[in-house]
Amino acid sequence: MKIYDVDGFPNPVRVRIALAEKSVTDQVEFIHVDVMGGEHRSDAFKAKNPDAVVPCLELDDGSYISQCNAITEYLDAAFDGPSLTGKTPEDRGKIAMMNLRAENGLLNAVGAYFHHATPGLGPDLERDQCAVWGHKQKIVARDTMAYLNSVLADHAYLAGEDFSIADITAFAGLAFADLSKVDIPENLTHLLAWRAKVAARPSVAA
Amino acid sequence: MKIYDVDGFPNPVRVRIALAEKSVTDQVEFIHVDVMGGEHRSDAFKAKNPDAVVPCLELDDGSYISQCNAITEYLDAAFDGPSLTGKTPEDRGKIAMMNLRAENGLLNAVGAYFHHATPGLGPDLERDQCAVWGHKQKIVARDTMAYLNSVLADHAYLAGEDFSIADITAFAGLAFADLSKVDIPENLTHLLAWRAKVAARPSVAA
Repeated sequence: MKIYDVDGFPNPVRVRIALAEKSVTDQVEFIHVDVMGGEHRSDAFKAKNPDAVVPCLELDDGSYISQCNAITEYLDAAFDGPSLTGKTPEDRGKIAMMNLRAENGLLNAVGAYFHHATPGLGPDLERDQCAVWGHKQKIVARDTMAYLNSVLADHAYLAGEDFSIADITAFAGLAFADLSKVDIPENLTHLLAWRAKVAARPSVAA
Repeated sequence: MKIYDVDGFPNPVRVRIALAEKSVTDQVEFIHVDVMGGEHRSDAFKAKNPDAVVPCLELDDGSYISQCNAITEYLDAAFDGPSLTGKTPEDRGKIAMMNLRAENGLLNAVGAYFHHATPGLGPDLERDQCAVWGHKQKIVARDTMAYLNSVLADHAYLAGEDFSIADITAFAGLAFADLSKVDIPENLTHLLAWRAKVAARPSVAA
């Protein structure tokens, strides 16, 4: 497998954690994409991933899978190790639900704030900003942090008692929040304790 | 199972098609939510689904799954019938990828246009519009239609040769486009032929 990404960017982090959870990081050749130079918007890259974003997985047959959730679905089904997307129908549904809430409400909301209401990746890349939308999404992100905190008051992880893709997505969302200077309110003690617990996992701390 | 929804709305349609594909529609009690009257934003409904949207699935144990993709994950794993989310790791990844492209690029983009740049569901419900964002998303929807057309030039369905959740999402996206008066360009002949084929499926035509 090859993965086209940028080490440390919020979405690539999600897939790298998933790879580490499945203990297959060493099966991947990582290929750096010069996002700051606009390589992800080149015709050559869009032939791999028309979404023009990182990360993008290339399978050994030369086909591509992009979108973090889709890449993680592939990895989770293809390799042994702890299940990230659930084994029973109920778990699959509830993990997918919490993952979407973390993605749309936190990670993508912070991303919209970053790309639309801050200088983002700079004027060469942020050519189509919509500041009013970005500021609205910052409010969504804050509301979602409070919601996730309420879930974590009663459960060890976002989709229940086991770590899942929903935790990966929310963890990356909080990292993106730090990058974007969206504060995590100190009174969200369950969220902050969960974040420290996730940060200590070998898949994340390594 | 119970499903809280509004018959005919774009997202509820997705789950109803999935139920029909799995031949389990008759196992569901449908409960109408008065969205036009704001019931989905009541505390009673948000206790079921904090996203405050329809549809929402209630399992027989009294727990809830919301978000169409999550409900469909549950249904696909819980019941026999044709696979909607894929059986092999490669299929699971590629179907999830195409489903996300159809959802974010078409259905949700049209939804953003409808709710933010048109009267939407009316002034009582559309209290936080962002017209400039809605108009940008209409362009995204049009671009996605052209992309999906290019995929369908080479394949019978969006994720390959078999019908999947990605087709359900895109079909609902085009229905939402009709409702929102977002025209489907006549030169997208592959997309239009695919739409007619999907419309004729027993799960859709019934």
